[in-house]
Amino acid sequence: MTATLLGVDVGGTKIAAGVVSADGALLASLVRPTPAAQGRTAVLDAIAAAVRELPGWDGAEGLGIGTGGVIDRDRGVVRSANALLPGWAGTRLREELSARLGLPVAADNDANVFALAEQTYGAGAGCASALYVSVGTGIGGGLVTGGRLLRGAHWTAGEFGHMAVPEAAGRPCNCGRAGHLEAVASGPAITARFRELSGEEDVYDLRKVAALAEPDARNDGSGTASRTALAEGAGALGRALAGLVNTVDPERVVIGGGVASIGAPFWQPLTEAFAAELLPGPAGIRPVPAALGPRAAVIGAAALLLEHHIPADHHDDANKDGDSA
Amino acid sequence: MTATLLGVDVGGTKIAAGVVSADGALLASLVRPTPAAQGRTAVLDAIAAAVRELPGWDGAEGLGIGTGGVIDRDRGVVRSANALLPGWAGTRLREELSARLGLPVAADNDANVFALAEQTYGAGAGCASALYVSVGTGIGGGLVTGGRLLRGAHWTAGEFGHMAVPEAAGRPCNCGRAGHLEAVASGPAITARFRELSGEEDVYDLRKVAALAEPDARNDGSGTASRTALAEGAGALGRALAGLVNTVDPERVVIGGGVASIGAPFWQPLTEAFAAELLPGPAGIRPVPAALGPRAAVIGAAALLLEHHIPADHHDDANKDGDSA
Repeated sequence: MTATLLGVDVGGTKIAAGVVSADGALLASLVRPTPAAQGRTAVLDAIAAAVRELPGWDGAEGLGIGTGGVIDRDRGVVRSANALLPGWAGTRLREELSARLGLPVAADNDANVFALAEQTYGAGAGCASALYVSVGTGIGGGLVTGGRLLRGAHWTAGEFGHMAVPEAAGRPCNCGRAGHLEAVASGPAITARFRELSGEEDVYDLRKVAALAEPDARNDGSGTASRTALAEGAGALGRALAGLVNTVDPERVVIGGGVASIGAPFWQPLTEAFAAELLPGPAGIRPVPAALGPRAAVIGAAALLLEHHIPADHHDDANKDGDSA
Repeated sequence: MTATLLGVDVGGTKIAAGVVSADGALLASLVRPTPAAQGRTAVLDAIAAAVRELPGWDGAEGLGIGTGGVIDRDRGVVRSANALLPGWAGTRLREELSARLGLPVAADNDANVFALAEQTYGAGAGCASALYVSVGTGIGGGLVTGGRLLRGAHWTAGEFGHMAVPEAAGRPCNCGRAGHLEAVASGPAITARFRELSGEEDVYDLRKVAALAEPDARNDGSGTASRTALAEGAGALGRALAGLVNTVDPERVVIGGGVASIGAPFWQPLTEAFAAELLPGPAGIRPVPAALGPRAAVIGAAALLLEHHIPADHHDDANKDGDSA
């Protein structure tokens, strides 16, 4: 029997679980609801139950978990989490799931496992350095240098959404501050900007905004509002990522997530703004779309088991214990 | 005899050369003019002549060179340079200086060797990850991850000055674009802003601006203009660096260069703006001053010989040969 790995992506509403081959193919997958309101133990039990539904789960090499929040990759512990998963902070994912399933378990942040998937099997495979950016409800991702995914001194590396950008001046950000990239280029920010520009106060679905921006869509005020909102967000993202590229000089920039899947009305202003800001060294770089689609996090969670991860004992221990919600 | 290393910092006007002990002490140093206008060979000869003036130079383990421009660290070749060193692009520093002096030679960008010095012996010693930022005529530096100085896929990593920041909107940058950090927080940018605010059109010396900002200095329009110009530049730098810290999550942020040496009128607004932008993970980080002073580049150039540098054969070779001025 060929070695397989299990990957689970735990969000506030859904648990996606899958069987992944050693070369990154998703052999089987399923999605179950997250009993978030029932608290930590119920969520852990639901993860274990979802895994037990996967074909051949008990013959797998191990289980990787990707989840929202700040995750200690060395210990497999949730250091902090947001309101979507109440009580999640402090959860010892590795210990709890290993006890329930009898398998080796690794855990990391969901944006990190997206990056790891694209780095291992996807649009950044073979790159020694790359930026991986996921643009959806928030903006996150991962930074690879020297062939390794950077975790950061406090496990928060890859938070691309919280740079101050000119286009977001004054706009409130999810982090509680204002003026950050996420406040102008995330899905909810683009949708809010569309409502502002169009006066259509009941539009909360980015797909509806995106449909209005298609070349053959309405060429009226709504179409213009949609194209403007998308271009503003995409332009801000392109300029901010180019500034990061000037700083980090990676081989590749990979962009995924729901907003990136909109297509030309997002990618064209993104690419133009990006290209216009680059220094001569990285001037030839253009962002490329993520390759693995919406199940990248499941694949990347499984890839945690294959990662040549070196626990970072040099990390700042004063900042390492105790959680901040 | 204790092993010593030689370091040289080659700028557009001066060549600084020194003898450095294995533990980073500058045992002897000298400064000679750069015959930049006489071209490449004259500059190479002047570097060799300066080295030969150093006590015990011919018993040293090797010579490290830091210089302006984009430098291929693997090959010791200048890939591109600016107008301060005409004809410098294409110079095979390692080959030419090794032939002249009979010593092993390594070369890198001057901002990189500043970072390497502070990482090896200075304010970031012992850190697995850090941002090193030099604020002077321009804004540059280096990024350490996993204990190593990142060179980038095109040898331009550490160009912190070319991120779009809200405070620089519309201001022309040295790179030919506008709105970048360097256009508001570099020494010349702060001095230009002082002239704009004060109407004192003949002030081109940042030290004069800094003196006017001292608490016991004039409390008139010039004092206010000076404090405002410094606070605007420092605030922009603090916010931009905090955005990078949110992204990279380093253990430490080290700031050096002439502008950073101004003291409180620069550091206070810098630190306040920085702290206000941080996410909870790295919230405890504060920038610290560089420790090695103006000769850091000489010390860091010497430290190139001690660096466990792995030539990056995986770098994008299509972008590696040929120079862009």
